[in-house]
Amino acid sequence: MGHERHPTVRGFRFAGVTAGLKDSGRPDLGLILADRVVPTSAVLTRNRVRAAPVQLAAQRLEQGRARAVLVNSGSANACTGKPGLEAARETTQAVAEALDLKKEAVLPASTGVIGAPLSVGRILDAVPSLVADLSPDGVGRFAEAIRTTDRGPKIAFIQVDAGRGEKATVLGVAKGAGMIHPSLATTLAFVVTDAPMSGAFLNRSLRQAADETFNAATVDGETSTNDAIFAMASGALDAEQIRGSDAVAKRFRGALVDVLGELARSVVRDGEGARKLVRLEVVGAPSQDAARKVAERVARSLLVKTAVHGGDPNWGRIVAAAGMADVAFEPDQVEVRIGTTVVCEKGVAVSGAEGDAARAMAADEYPIRLKLGSGKGKAHYWLCDIGHDYVTLNSEYTT
Amino acid sequence: MGHERHPTVRGFRFAGVTAGLKDSGRPDLGLILADRVVPTSAVLTRNRVRAAPVQLAAQRLEQGRARAVLVNSGSANACTGKPGLEAARETTQAVAEALDLKKEAVLPASTGVIGAPLSVGRILDAVPSLVADLSPDGVGRFAEAIRTTDRGPKIAFIQVDAGRGEKATVLGVAKGAGMIHPSLATTLAFVVTDAPMSGAFLNRSLRQAADETFNAATVDGETSTNDAIFAMASGALDAEQIRGSDAVAKRFRGALVDVLGELARSVVRDGEGARKLVRLEVVGAPSQDAARKVAERVARSLLVKTAVHGGDPNWGRIVAAAGMADVAFEPDQVEVRIGTTVVCEKGVAVSGAEGDAARAMAADEYPIRLKLGSGKGKAHYWLCDIGHDYVTLNSEYTT
Repeated sequence: MGHERHPTVRGFRFAGVTAGLKDSGRPDLGLILADRVVPTSAVLTRNRVRAAPVQLAAQRLEQGRARAVLVNSGSANACTGKPGLEAARETTQAVAEALDLKKEAVLPASTGVIGAPLSVGRILDAVPSLVADLSPDGVGRFAEAIRTTDRGPKIAFIQVDAGRGEKATVLGVAKGAGMIHPSLATTLAFVVTDAPMSGAFLNRSLRQAADETFNAATVDGETSTNDAIFAMASGALDAEQIRGSDAVAKRFRGALVDVLGELARSVVRDGEGARKLVRLEVVGAPSQDAARKVAERVARSLLVKTAVHGGDPNWGRIVAAAGMADVAFEPDQVEVRIGTTVVCEKGVAVSGAEGDAARAMAADEYPIRLKLGSGKGKAHYWLCDIGHDYVTLNSEYTT
Repeated sequence: MGHERHPTVRGFRFAGVTAGLKDSGRPDLGLILADRVVPTSAVLTRNRVRAAPVQLAAQRLEQGRARAVLVNSGSANACTGKPGLEAARETTQAVAEALDLKKEAVLPASTGVIGAPLSVGRILDAVPSLVADLSPDGVGRFAEAIRTTDRGPKIAFIQVDAGRGEKATVLGVAKGAGMIHPSLATTLAFVVTDAPMSGAFLNRSLRQAADETFNAATVDGETSTNDAIFAMASGALDAEQIRGSDAVAKRFRGALVDVLGELARSVVRDGEGARKLVRLEVVGAPSQDAARKVAERVARSLLVKTAVHGGDPNWGRIVAAAGMADVAFEPDQVEVRIGTTVVCEKGVAVSGAEGDAARAMAADEYPIRLKLGSGKGKAHYWLCDIGHDYVTLNSEYTT
């Protein structure tokens, strides 16, 4: 997997400019444009309170095809009522007109301050420079434009054998770094590929990959009004259309998981004040769904996250959090492993194991494994620690 | 409601001594003794991982009657396997023998470090002094003995008209102060009354009152392996037995809610590093259950709790947290009131309201009201802020 400065993907152009939506004066308006109308899918926030751009994107995605995604940072356009929806329509329409597209072919996405109106005028003024900025190697500028509190731009890409000696590219860009403001909290990800595929295949693949990556990662357990992962497939690669069961399909799905996984981990690693990245693995659950429930409960436990912050091998917090997951298991069959050290076996402490476990927890990144001994279900979850910087950033921010 | 030093309740004696379970050498062993076998009930942790004393108490409570509760701090006796259960049996049996009771009449409760064995020997050695310490006005010493990280002992009591010119007393003692260690995190509460009633009435009343008080309060959303609320009714008052529908029953239930409510609020107020106590009220939900779900989701949101910490009138965090509660409501009907200031109306910002809201949030204690506009269901929840002290205490603790 590479992190080159300006990877390109056949069939797509990118742009990123400054419209003046952020007080900082940093880039805040990005655009992805496909050369033609292409299969497009998105996983949108499960929050009942959906920002205006999410509502409009959901509506326009019903046809499963699009040409462009217009993304702004600096304003979430959430909790903004009918004027907010109108603002999303107006700004995407301006892009459509500038590029001579149907307005329905442009999808909106926003991240930034909640409750404040979108500065439509500033975006309209910036559309000409945004369109002029489009280029096949503009992904770096696009990534800059969608940042909020991220430590840096988040780009990941990978190439896979697509048959006929051709390599398909999967390129992803994301923003997200935990929470300063509820929608600076937003996670946005965009993945594009030149591999040819149906809209249905793209949609299925995206949903599966999102479940294994972004939906198995947490900074602080919150889900914003604006969260979204978009995927577009240009089909510009000269290869056979990917079908559900062939070897290329398997490689493509693996690549999608790798790209989204790397982006999701970089979001967790960027969690405000986070210094630790833990891969929590739950095994031996009654089912995969049960394993996932337990993993999520443990990964979101504030006590577990502060123990990780302090490097404290406090396995009791892990077991106690698992006990609240509404999943049947026998507490006296539980095993907990921190790094490579088993600290709890058959539900009780392993004497003398704490030193080794504490040493494992001194690393920036390490695994924790929880074995329930009640079946074959397993799941994983990525989590970070919660430390003082999180509290500082989240309590001292003033609207 | 009063906070006298040594209130008494007819039919009960209390004790609190030092057995040496805590490194600090502070009192750590408490006992409540009824003059005879009396109706006894408990609400026990919903955590699937139940400490040994919780398991044994649950078993002994099946008969709905008991004479004594033996409580230790300094050790949770959780995740201790069969030896842990044996330790709970042995220590309660020692008390039963010293007082010539049936062993089943003594219930155990523990709070303290998880995973470490209970020091049975130290408890057995302390039983004679514990029994000698029993006195009708010993509640202050009992309250001291069950403390862990509490800022002070937590005692609340109230008297209600029981008819015939008699006053019934409801006395409660609690410990709990958020989380340093998963079971120092434990909430324990004990409520005793001299009012005469059936076991069934006591049990129903306790469950209702717990739902309105301890089950509607959160420090950090965690539920420990040892949480428990015990209730005993001596019936030593010369009054008619309370029946389900009479005026005395209503007054008694109100008193129980008042006493448990004051104890629950003192636990939230004592949350590590907490400086703020917020009464969150959710109204206009499709049902009471829905209102409760929303209240719980908002009260447990880390973003809401850090906004409360910083005095930031960031209503978007409240609305976004509500949106994740799996409850149907129309976002554009939502109203948020902080103190007496409406900051969000019909789902959008009320311009110019932030200053007043920020001033309201400067108080130590204030209400927040969330109106969903989708029905008549309502519920409340008590929450505290999460600040730096919480992170410090929870990350720097070393097992």
